[in-house]
Amino acid sequence: MPTIQYYFDYFENIDPGAVFDLGSRMVSEEEILAFAREFDPQPFHIDPDAAAQSIFGGIIASGWHTCSLTMRLMVDNFLSRAASLGSPGVEQIRWLRPVRPGDTISARIVVLEARASQSKPDRGAVRMRTEVTNQHGELVMSMESTGLIGRRPAP
Amino acid sequence: MPTIQYYFDYFENIDPGAVFDLGSRMVSEEEILAFAREFDPQPFHIDPDAAAQSIFGGIIASGWHTCSLTMRLMVDNFLSRAASLGSPGVEQIRWLRPVRPGDTISARIVVLEARASQSKPDRGAVRMRTEVTNQHGELVMSMESTGLIGRRPAP
Repeated sequence: MPTIQYYFDYFENIDPGAVFDLGSRMVSEEEILAFAREFDPQPFHIDPDAAAQSIFGGIIASGWHTCSLTMRLMVDNFLSRAASLGSPGVEQIRWLRPVRPGDTISARIVVLEARASQSKPDRGAVRMRTEVTNQHGELVMSMESTGLIGRRPAP
Repeated sequence: MPTIQYYFDYFENIDPGAVFDLGSRMVSEEEILAFAREFDPQPFHIDPDAAAQSIFGGIIASGWHTCSLTMRLMVDNFLSRAASLGSPGVEQIRWLRPVRPGDTISARIVVLEARASQSKPDRGAVRMRTEVTNQHGELVMSMESTGLIGRRPAP
């Protein structure tokens, strides 16, 4: 069983293999439609009738909405307690199953690697895998990304 | 010089090497703050005073906001004219430079590969590189992703 860590602050506290529980949230049809009308107005995201006729059989959330909702869980339950310095990017996102209105998504992070920066001694890079599941325990999205976290200041 | 294509509909019309211009849009401070308050409430995205003291020197857009704004350009200028069937995922995102309030971002797609599905004869997979630049011509984000596009129905 992996260790569950519920708290960290600086880079020095993040151990490869650690797992962080990011909690859960329900995704309503109203917010799926609102996000997609603004950012991803494809018929299967914004038009219930067209979505019912599509290969998806009904409204599904934009993959970018799932990413954004997962980011919120990550900030609330992980980054807000840490010396977060942003992110240089993402290595991989897999949208594996649709997220549908009323689904409850849960997320967790597994730390893959923690590497102190050679060029910037105030920070380290944390490579992590994020897994998002629905209320049936099915994986709906996985992601590998890197976060920059500040190192503990010298006393 | 790469070919600029302004229109396509089905998978058969998408050629590797083709470049699609996705147009431009300005990003206001108000929308940067609104997105980040909902999805990425880190101090350098939502708090002008804290952002000024941060390594970024002022408010910057969430990377997920840049992805979402780019998706909107992609839908309006590319996918809305095509038989889009969603996306299985993204291979890489690089957030290379901050997007700041008042910046105007422009996006274009370069088609890397177009491959007909072996298992599903109604569609093909299009691998593409998306490049987003600011008003100074600096690359702020690059992405490699895959879109599924329907094949032309038999007559």
